[in-house]
Amino acid sequence: MSSSFGEQIKISIFGQSHSAGIGVVIDGLPAGEKVNLEAVRRFMQRRAPGRQKYATARKEADEPEILSGLFEDRTCGAPLCAVIHNTNTRSKDYDQLKSIPRPAHADYPAMIRHQGYQDYRGGGHFSGRLTAPLCFAGAVCIQILERQGIETGAHILSIAGVQDRSLDAVNITPQELAAVRRKEFPVIDDRAGQEMIAAIAEAKADGDSVGGIIELGVTGMPVGIGEPMFGGIENKLAQAVFGIPAVKGIEFGLGFAAADSRGSQNNDGFCTDGAGNIKTRTNHHGGILGGLSSGMPIVMRAAFKPTPSIIKEQDSVIAASGEETRLRIEGRHDPCIVPRAVPCVEAAAAVAILDMILLKK
Amino acid sequence: MSSSFGEQIKISIFGQSHSAGIGVVIDGLPAGEKVNLEAVRRFMQRRAPGRQKYATARKEADEPEILSGLFEDRTCGAPLCAVIHNTNTRSKDYDQLKSIPRPAHADYPAMIRHQGYQDYRGGGHFSGRLTAPLCFAGAVCIQILERQGIETGAHILSIAGVQDRSLDAVNITPQELAAVRRKEFPVIDDRAGQEMIAAIAEAKADGDSVGGIIELGVTGMPVGIGEPMFGGIENKLAQAVFGIPAVKGIEFGLGFAAADSRGSQNNDGFCTDGAGNIKTRTNHHGGILGGLSSGMPIVMRAAFKPTPSIIKEQDSVIAASGEETRLRIEGRHDPCIVPRAVPCVEAAAAVAILDMILLKK
Amino acid sequence: MSSSFGEQIKISIFGQSHSAGIGVVIDGLPAGEKVNLEAVRRFMQRRAPGRQKYATARKEADEPEILSGLFEDRTCGAPLCAVIHNTNTRSKDYDQLKSIPRPAHADYPAMIRHQGYQDYRGGGHFSGRLTAPLCFAGAVCIQILERQGIETGAHILSIAGVQDRSLDAVNITPQELAAVRRKEFPVIDDRAGQEMIAAIAEAKADGDSVGGIIELGVTGMPVGIGEPMFGGIENKLAQAVFGIPAVKGIEFGLGFAAADSRGSQNNDGFCTDGAGNIKTRTNHHGGILGGLSSGMPIVMRAAFKPTPSIIKEQDSVIAASGEETRLRIEGRHDPCIVPRAVPCVEAAAAVAILDMILLKK
Amino acid sequence: MSSSFGEQIKISIFGQSHSAGIGVVIDGLPAGEKVNLEAVRRFMQRRAPGRQKYATARKEADEPEILSGLFEDRTCGAPLCAVIHNTNTRSKDYDQLKSIPRPAHADYPAMIRHQGYQDYRGGGHFSGRLTAPLCFAGAVCIQILERQGIETGAHILSIAGVQDRSLDAVNITPQELAAVRRKEFPVIDDRAGQEMIAAIAEAKADGDSVGGIIELGVTGMPVGIGEPMFGGIENKLAQAVFGIPAVKGIEFGLGFAAADSRGSQNNDGFCTDGAGNIKTRTNHHGGILGGLSSGMPIVMRAAFKPTPSIIKEQDSVIAASGEETRLRIEGRHDPCIVPRAVPCVEAAAAVAILDMILLKK
Repeated sequence: MSSSFGEQIKISIFGQSHSAGIGVVIDGLPAGEKVNLEAVRRFMQRRAPGRQKYATARKEADEPEILSGLFEDRTCGAPLCAVIHNTNTRSKDYDQLKSIPRPAHADYPAMIRHQGYQDYRGGGHFSGRLTAPLCFAGAVCIQILERQGIETGAHILSIAGVQDRSLDAVNITPQELAAVRRKEFPVIDDRAGQEMIAAIAEAKADGDSVGGIIELGVTGMPVGIGEPMFGGIENKLAQAVFGIPAVKGIEFGLGFAAADSRGSQNNDGFCTDGAGNIKTRTNHHGGILGGLSSGMPIVMRAAFKPTPSIIKEQDSVIAASGEETRLRIEGRHDPCIVPRAVPCVEAAAAVAILDMILLKK
Repeated sequence: MSSSFGEQIKISIFGQSHSAGIGVVIDGLPAGEKVNLEAVRRFMQRRAPGRQKYATARKEADEPEILSGLFEDRTCGAPLCAVIHNTNTRSKDYDQLKSIPRPAHADYPAMIRHQGYQDYRGGGHFSGRLTAPLCFAGAVCIQILERQGIETGAHILSIAGVQDRSLDAVNITPQELAAVRRKEFPVIDDRAGQEMIAAIAEAKADGDSVGGIIELGVTGMPVGIGEPMFGGIENKLAQAVFGIPAVKGIEFGLGFAAADSRGSQNNDGFCTDGAGNIKTRTNHHGGILGGLSSGMPIVMRAAFKPTPSIIKEQDSVIAASGEETRLRIEGRHDPCIVPRAVPCVEAAAAVAILDMILLKK
Repeated sequence: MSSSFGEQIKISIFGQSHSAGIGVVIDGLPAGEKVNLEAVRRFMQRRAPGRQKYATARKEADEPEILSGLFEDRTCGAPLCAVIHNTNTRSKDYDQLKSIPRPAHADYPAMIRHQGYQDYRGGGHFSGRLTAPLCFAGAVCIQILERQGIETGAHILSIAGVQDRSLDAVNITPQELAAVRRKEFPVIDDRAGQEMIAAIAEAKADGDSVGGIIELGVTGMPVGIGEPMFGGIENKLAQAVFGIPAVKGIEFGLGFAAADSRGSQNNDGFCTDGAGNIKTRTNHHGGILGGLSSGMPIVMRAAFKPTPSIIKEQDSVIAASGEETRLRIEGRHDPCIVPRAVPCVEAAAAVAILDMILLKK
Repeated sequence: MSSSFGEQIKISIFGQSHSAGIGVVIDGLPAGEKVNLEAVRRFMQRRAPGRQKYATARKEADEPEILSGLFEDRTCGAPLCAVIHNTNTRSKDYDQLKSIPRPAHADYPAMIRHQGYQDYRGGGHFSGRLTAPLCFAGAVCIQILERQGIETGAHILSIAGVQDRSLDAVNITPQELAAVRRKEFPVIDDRAGQEMIAAIAEAKADGDSVGGIIELGVTGMPVGIGEPMFGGIENKLAQAVFGIPAVKGIEFGLGFAAADSRGSQNNDGFCTDGAGNIKTRTNHHGGILGGLSSGMPIVMRAAFKPTPSIIKEQDSVIAASGEETRLRIEGRHDPCIVPRAVPCVEAAAAVAILDMILLKK
């Protein structure tokens, strides 16, 4: 199956970039959970295009219409369906995609997979636009998680090689996660943020694009969440987060750096805090041991490739004939999707974490 | 659910480090596929301990007994069950684990999750020993994939910071993958391999351990395999490979390095080869676009943390009382599990890839 | 999970009787399948209320809006979402349901399950209205099945004890199935149909309701469809058809009558037809052996209880206090839902059968 | 997927009639549940052949070996695997099955489905022998359910048309269920049982077989268990129970008889008992409303066709050539499998019910 995720709660995302609507069905939410739709909308605005000078000039209302699943502002036990109607689509921009695949996009394999029947307009079902319903689902899950004391927050760790400070894996607080989330450009060190914005502007001026890394923190996780082997937190977060277009790598705790360390450095010794709770002195494991939550903050990083759609002319082929050609992509595109991807990472993580919490018997 | 993986074929892995047996049920294999059990055994031997001087001295027969699913040496359409009987287990080595969790192991969260009822001997169901049935399942899937022209192979890219050469993402051949797989110490550059072995020996002498990175290549993938969003090749490979203990990061193609590049560098322009097939000139995308196979070789890297079990004394706590204590781990442990993890990565990938190939309608 | 069905194709149904909309997401449809929306609408009209004098006087437009999944009138490989907007709902009719559960409805267990947060208006997510999106999904699947030579058709076998002729399990033709489907009152023997209509009118005059049995036939099934044990055709059809409210029994072939027969009578001996195809002389097995299709027509019957909503006063309780009370149900209700349930049975069966056909590797 | 069932707990059954072993993996059992293996064995003995004069003379030890999942006699959170080694198999009895399918067995569709690679010996994976691991799984689930006050019991309602008394759907007690379960021939009215045994003997003398109906009762169900639409108790019980070979019909409460009744008769009015609990005066709904448990006893009936293997000569074909022939089945077969199927129905129901109880959040 394709565009669904989860076991205890299941989200089914539908829509294409230029179809009449896109949306999500969330099945399995516990009944009686209050949903603050105004907070959902604010969350979704963090992903929406057209707000910032470093993002695409397209405007998308991204106003979710609730078709089902809420009754008197609470979940009622029935599947929750939210729809975002597509407007302001300029399909003619994409006519050449029918025959000439864009480099680094899904156009070519989708064409083969669906034998030419794919909806090629704007990338169809593979468009980054499909992260809007993901953000809707995540925003709902985040509200439920917060009521259980679980806080999720992400920031831009790097763009074009410019580094933000890392989260403090041991001492990170919900307040810090909330603070960075509220920023228009979500970095811990705003001076690094200014440099990143400058790097984006430079790439844009060159008709080019840049990538970056997003770091996620989760506090308040109970100990022992997750399933063994293929159902662990790492497996589930990875399955969810790789659902965001352009993610090419994921790591937890020290991640790839752990490969170069020794056991005596990397192992996090246990200790107790003042209140008698079992903790670890360091948190190289990123809050996950054997796939299960250790009670320490979860720390995850996701690497995003540069936006594939660039103004610069590129090599491509006419798919039907195999004839080589040059392609110039028209339309309005983010020179860097990383800032808008921050809430997407939070959303994907929140859906996965709520699912695992509900899975625990 | 915990220890199962897959949709069209489903593997269910069972067993604990010291239970009577461990094994796997593989449901959904196509009927009529020849299974060469001798080749399966050779594959499993690459994972088995006790063969090499840089690995643990424990001997495990790891001889799979086929209970069902094969008839006259072929899959018969019924679930295939293979069991490995546990022998040579020294449970008394692990008595202290009942109360004092080992750092960087699943002991502590497993204890909380299962309210003290977990099988703590040797890590129980969280033991690396459970990768033996995974290797069995992978070896069967690899034989089926090879018949379809799909070759899977992995090598050690680094241990303790010592680097092997990378796979040539554009031109890698099935022959190269097969060649490196046949080596006792699977590296491309054997001099790098000698350095790695020295680094492992040094760590062992210090009562310590080291980690490393494994790189996987897959050739011969048809174009358009994979499902959109949460069912893409990256999602599925990540879900499978994070099922191997000690994996803390996964990346595809350029991976984390893509985050620092520009779109004009990272995008892989399309071209045609002499036979009129559509290819890309470079392969920064690691053979996967929008979650679907592009027809270029798949390239994935997985980072392994150092073996958690080290001889050096470590900080821990008495779980029941929260009293801090020091822990010295007895028993025989690999100072580096990376060499033995190479077939595990191949196996996990093969199961995931065969599943996705069968999913394609 | 609740309101989803299927493995290779998955339908997720959402909505409540009085929510803004109801609908379905169909994920996993093969790409390139033409969808005739006019034929879908005609199919849905067979279920829609307000058309017939023996059905409720409510009018529901039941006009599906396609949000996604179709491109130039064909499936495009992306999930297909169809929404029916709810109009003409009279929520005040249902105010007493908040506290006094209706006999034979889901009101009481839903209240307990969802801790009082269920959408009680019109039965909420448990309403028969949710069969409208099921019919949408079924109508799409029926078109795909017909292109493969598989015809699905059902008729009313009995209402209030009045019997129609049974399908001829051995010789039934696609033409006969199509003919009975086209009738406004789908029976084989129209005189029996007139008696049924009279029995319904009589019950209505008494402020009462009646039930009945629907018989389904499927022709053109390839041999060997279905999975063993829990994935057989009987299991899957039962799982789907019990999703229609009011179904209380399902049987295949001779069904319950087989329990009273002897093996020598019940066993269907094999023979060959003129064209050399293997058949059975009789079809007591209803086209299913060991869960797999035998190539003979599939014959299934589903028993529907009488409409629970009746005008007659009934016993109930005030749920909060447990005080016994009498309940009179207002509103417009079918005195017999069996005629409108005929396309629902066809739809549920078609979804299940297409799923199993796509599951076959 | 084929031979697995369940969501929150998942059972995967493996094996063929004549493979080295058959068994089951039960994944998702809560940790810390005591498993009384002696009680499990007693339960399995009720299904085992060779005990009774009205059953086959074959002897099967059916002694389960626990490979994993138990630690100090309790579930430990890891998947539980039990294996039954096959002995006393006489494969040569089945040689003709390779080419001549037995009427009313799965031989023919299995041959087509698996392109001739199926394990045809004794019916392979489609053999009734596979209900032994189902009984193992059910016996474990029954112990867990009993600890929660949920009692499951079934009896023979009819064989060859001879009727036992029905369960009293309103007042049935756990004690009554336990009492009938303990009988060697599980009927409520032992005189009816004697008549049934005589009818079986008569059929056997004729080289023939008979079928029957099994009635299941479940007491102590909490209110509100089950999922809406396709995840209701009826859907899940049907999916599980149709996994037992020879089941051709299932009904709940009044079942097919409800189709002939009027709403005013069939609807079960609510009332309160002395303790203030909400009940229904009658229980035509069989404890299930809208797929959810109402708190009244669950009542289900399953119709079994006569044993397909009979001594009498039957019509068949040589599958490869299509030539018609006559078939005489050798070997030892039950003239009636209904008595041995009673624990199978209890087992399938127990697995499904425990799954649904664990699904409730």
